[in-house]
Amino acid sequence: MTMNVLLTGAFGRVGTAIIDHLADRDEYNFTYLNRSDREEYETFVADVSNYEEMRPAFDDQDAVIHLAGYPETDGSWKQILENNIVGMYNTLEAAKDAGVPKFVFGSTNHVVGMYEVEFAPELYELDFDLTVDEDSPRRPDSYYGSSKSFDEDLGRYYVENYQSPEQFYALRICSVRHEEYDHPYGDAEHGVDEGEWERDSPEYEEKVARMKGMWQSRRDLAHQVDCCLQDDDVEFDVFYGVSDNDRRWFDIEHAREVLGYDPQDNGEEWDAPPEGR
Amino acid sequence: MTMNVLLTGAFGRVGTAIIDHLADRDEYNFTYLNRSDREEYETFVADVSNYEEMRPAFDDQDAVIHLAGYPETDGSWKQILENNIVGMYNTLEAAKDAGVPKFVFGSTNHVVGMYEVEFAPELYELDFDLTVDEDSPRRPDSYYGSSKSFDEDLGRYYVENYQSPEQFYALRICSVRHEEYDHPYGDAEHGVDEGEWERDSPEYEEKVARMKGMWQSRRDLAHQVDCCLQDDDVEFDVFYGVSDNDRRWFDIEHAREVLGYDPQDNGEEWDAPPEGR
Repeated sequence: MTMNVLLTGAFGRVGTAIIDHLADRDEYNFTYLNRSDREEYETFVADVSNYEEMRPAFDDQDAVIHLAGYPETDGSWKQILENNIVGMYNTLEAAKDAGVPKFVFGSTNHVVGMYEVEFAPELYELDFDLTVDEDSPRRPDSYYGSSKSFDEDLGRYYVENYQSPEQFYALRICSVRHEEYDHPYGDAEHGVDEGEWERDSPEYEEKVARMKGMWQSRRDLAHQVDCCLQDDDVEFDVFYGVSDNDRRWFDIEHAREVLGYDPQDNGEEWDAPPEGR
Repeated sequence: MTMNVLLTGAFGRVGTAIIDHLADRDEYNFTYLNRSDREEYETFVADVSNYEEMRPAFDDQDAVIHLAGYPETDGSWKQILENNIVGMYNTLEAAKDAGVPKFVFGSTNHVVGMYEVEFAPELYELDFDLTVDEDSPRRPDSYYGSSKSFDEDLGRYYVENYQSPEQFYALRICSVRHEEYDHPYGDAEHGVDEGEWERDSPEYEEKVARMKGMWQSRRDLAHQVDCCLQDDDVEFDVFYGVSDNDRRWFDIEHAREVLGYDPQDNGEEWDAPPEGR
């Protein structure tokens, strides 16, 4: 049977990874909700800060993957309040009102970002001993991270109080890149390129080491979302979205055990920048 | 040396307990901030949802005790968003802007209220074995509880990112009563009285058993706040605000160890409704 899946914030880095890897699958029938449309995709144009505008997109959906929101730690209070706090309330309300049973939420490592701030740059080294898991106290590093922590709590409240949605998965995604930069050597937007730091400079080496720890390849992200869509057991749970990187400090054993997450990539596979860079 | 202390939401149940027990002490010089004034007290009238209005009250304060906000689980999303989410942002911003080093926050047991929903009414019995402590996963039972969980995270972000405030204490207060009802037999507002349930009915007995677990006497609450004001060591921490009740399911060992909290009361002391009720 085909599962109808609503993808909000569909055309960002994470959304396009899901589209690239899952949209062709027979099990899924995707609807793309985004603030602006794209030539190549049929788009439900709506802003998640406007409940009335977005609500019709939730009819007849079996799952929502909620990625829409301000996506970075530099968000001002106003941007975060409207897009990530009110936006999450609107999305949970719309899902409840339409009876959508499954909710996959694009949370972020920045819910616990202060561990990195505290232990960087030693944290990026291969032998540094820290594991942040789903039980670690939350230590947000920004309004952005604080809002995603709130969103996780609000999702749990809807599941436990309304039983609607019936299932909620918070994926604390680390670093998913644009398709053309799907490796720890990054992209201009995230600073690991020759434009910003001279290659082989200490800053460049540190940034690459960090990315080798934080990277979640596009196929690993899409596979993890697929695990959530296929799962029948979770009511509420929190997982880290990261590849099986030797340098990672975020736990993936919980995702392996509960979801069957089986990442294929490891940031150490890249020991030099890809050809032509 | 006298400590200047700003008390927001000063005239509610918790605020008046602090006034009754600490306002006469030589160590403290209180300023009362409230939405409306009271005849008997000099009041700084301001609404915490309005930053400009409240900001001047923070000048020259050594501590803020932040209680203002919508105080109950029945709050609508709009009430909670304005008073408890935006209100907390405004309060933290004002404290940071004015350089107030200590922040005592009136949080709530409803941050973890779903444990009670799950285990009631057996939870209220003397021999029920559950302890919810500061490490227990947060399970809010309402928009209200979700907002207070967010407020704790936001406070931690300000401490760890801005080091302003320098100290943040989240008190997850259980049930503080009006002065004339300072015992587990409650008051009309909270349902344990003859108006709402017939005395000796099963509903009455259950509600009284619950209150014997949840009660924090006014002197114990004021003492716990006093511990926070006197403490020099905490940067960020979470404590439960409850008396040493035999029936409590919230931990107070952490507050004993870190703050020296030494509650004098126990809900079991009341084995019959007070005289005249």
